[in-house]
Amino acid sequence: MIKQYLLAPGPTPIPNEVVRAMDQTMIHHRTPQFSKAFAEAREELKALFGTKNDVLVLASSGTGAMEAAVANLFSPGEKVLVVNGGKFGERWMQISQAFGLEVVQLKVEWGKAVKPDVIENHLKVYPDIQGVLIQASETSTTTLHPVREIAQLTRNGPLLIVDGVTAVGVLPVPMDDWNIDVLVTGSQKALMLPPGLGFIALSDRAWGRTEKAKLPRFYLDLRLERKNQQKGSTAFTPAVSLIFGLRASLQMMREEGLERVYARHERLARATRAAATALGLRLLAPDNPSPAATGIMLPGGIDGDKLLDYFRERMGITFAEGQDQLRGKIIRIAHVGYIGAFDVLVAIGALEMALKKFGQPVKFGQGIAAAQEILMESLD
Amino acid sequence: MIKQYLLAPGPTPIPNEVVRAMDQTMIHHRTPQFSKAFAEAREELKALFGTKNDVLVLASSGTGAMEAAVANLFSPGEKVLVVNGGKFGERWMQISQAFGLEVVQLKVEWGKAVKPDVIENHLKVYPDIQGVLIQASETSTTTLHPVREIAQLTRNGPLLIVDGVTAVGVLPVPMDDWNIDVLVTGSQKALMLPPGLGFIALSDRAWGRTEKAKLPRFYLDLRLERKNQQKGSTAFTPAVSLIFGLRASLQMMREEGLERVYARHERLARATRAAATALGLRLLAPDNPSPAATGIMLPGGIDGDKLLDYFRERMGITFAEGQDQLRGKIIRIAHVGYIGAFDVLVAIGALEMALKKFGQPVKFGQGIAAAQEILMESLD
Repeated sequence: MIKQYLLAPGPTPIPNEVVRAMDQTMIHHRTPQFSKAFAEAREELKALFGTKNDVLVLASSGTGAMEAAVANLFSPGEKVLVVNGGKFGERWMQISQAFGLEVVQLKVEWGKAVKPDVIENHLKVYPDIQGVLIQASETSTTTLHPVREIAQLTRNGPLLIVDGVTAVGVLPVPMDDWNIDVLVTGSQKALMLPPGLGFIALSDRAWGRTEKAKLPRFYLDLRLERKNQQKGSTAFTPAVSLIFGLRASLQMMREEGLERVYARHERLARATRAAATALGLRLLAPDNPSPAATGIMLPGGIDGDKLLDYFRERMGITFAEGQDQLRGKIIRIAHVGYIGAFDVLVAIGALEMALKKFGQPVKFGQGIAAAQEILMESLD
Repeated sequence: MIKQYLLAPGPTPIPNEVVRAMDQTMIHHRTPQFSKAFAEAREELKALFGTKNDVLVLASSGTGAMEAAVANLFSPGEKVLVVNGGKFGERWMQISQAFGLEVVQLKVEWGKAVKPDVIENHLKVYPDIQGVLIQASETSTTTLHPVREIAQLTRNGPLLIVDGVTAVGVLPVPMDDWNIDVLVTGSQKALMLPPGLGFIALSDRAWGRTEKAKLPRFYLDLRLERKNQQKGSTAFTPAVSLIFGLRASLQMMREEGLERVYARHERLARATRAAATALGLRLLAPDNPSPAATGIMLPGGIDGDKLLDYFRERMGITFAEGQDQLRGKIIRIAHVGYIGAFDVLVAIGALEMALKKFGQPVKFGQGIAAAQEILMESLD
């Protein structure tokens, strides 16, 4: 008997309240019951995105919502600047290239945040850039990019299109206040849902661009979706169960309070980083760490793949691996979504024990103690 | 958002596999489907009880099964010896007295095990004792009684009637091998089920006594139950969902292997005791501790009720309190049922943090580290 702990940056654990909301006799989607649940969820989403505009819900993964951003806003051959500091920066590149855009790539060292002045410089060198595509939180490197500062540079220029998949619901990303033009997320992170829903919201000027954009789209046509969703329906068959789950998870977040949700993520991330540091481990992104997950450099000589297998098979714990050049060199411990203080103790306790099994000179309790000091802040 | 951790000695957490088995469209109990599930579960129960005889399943709590033992085996005015070393020893007294038996009470200090030679002496002083009623694991004091040794004294004398509520499925209690005459348990402990099922098995000579016993019984008439259950049915309406859950939980225990189930409980208990000791805390039952739960004496000046409220309200953790004269003076940390190594880390991490909040000079990680050393044994 090995209990399972899902501590990867998505999918994340699903609260029982959400499971129960989804576990209902299937209803048809062209019904008042569905429309009511959908409208209630969409209203809550506006607060989460910090927008007065529509947040559209797609039956897709987060990547579908990313593609919707590209396909609805640009025309063939238009130039975009892609900040590529990890696997999801690469994904913006791949989508843009697949749709025939001309991509200016701004490569950023993995684990580093892009510097706004470098973006500013690129916008001067390429004045015909129509959009800047970036991650708020680059999940693959557990790094935050400074989208708020970047939005200052783009507000009168190119559209700022932000992948918020491990940012929305984790930290404040108020898109209207910050002048973000497009904000995208998925269901399986902070929203505490199974994968299967993509979310996208557009600024007024981005909606204006949808009228001129000539890239082909059908399933992901946001104008069609907006028309339908404003009437409580969807253009195509919605993921009915997930919508009922969404209403429940947004209700949970409202009850906790968004400020407390953000503070919780920040605290759990800080506790995880303090624990890793106390254990003498280096962080992948020490300067601009994401509150969604913490990348930890493994000591030399440890094979990360074997370590992750050990966590999963012997301890029942799923952490995330490093990707591409970080493969085998890091682990990523997530603290996003339905995660509490004691999940951090489980993660760090398991890390201490596994490192010892792999021959590292670990002092048990040392990382835990550093985490406990920070987790105490939430208690009174 | 406060995640909930149920770490009390029953009810205990329910595995998803069991929840799903129970979460089915209700079926009628006079059907081949029910009879099949029931027969399969009853067959598995024999291995768990270590008996060739029937294990009867009652729609009752564990107390119902205790009452069934008394009501089916004795006649008014008969004399029984009750080992009373805690709340559940007291319960044997109350049941026996309610049914008009003459009770010889053997009081045992809370947290101590009864000594077999004291029982031997009582049996000499009162040669007309017809039954010895005892707990294998006295949940209220987290103490084991030496039922195996006691069975050596009773095998040719009075019936030995054992409350195994926090023993069956926690440690080996092979009733046929040990010459236990009656073994009782409930569903909400090691069996990883909600409350609602009582279990009872009788030795051949106990079955013989049921024919002579004159105490009144109707709902709990074991002869009637045996007749029905041997045909795949029950005398009265069974708790259908719980039976489906029972089949699933027994299947999980079989897959883990009973020896490993016992070893897990023993290891988690040892880790919990080591942690408490490392934190300078005294154990309630240092000499004969139960592997189901660990009673820990609280430092002077700490109000146990307030501490338990704090665990529950601020940390989402449910431990058990002390009862009667131990009220407010101890906490009981359970490690029975669907509990793994990391639950112990959660329990001890929370204990360290709460004690510090309550003004104790705790060194974070000290108890955890002691637990980790022991929990490492299960890893390779």
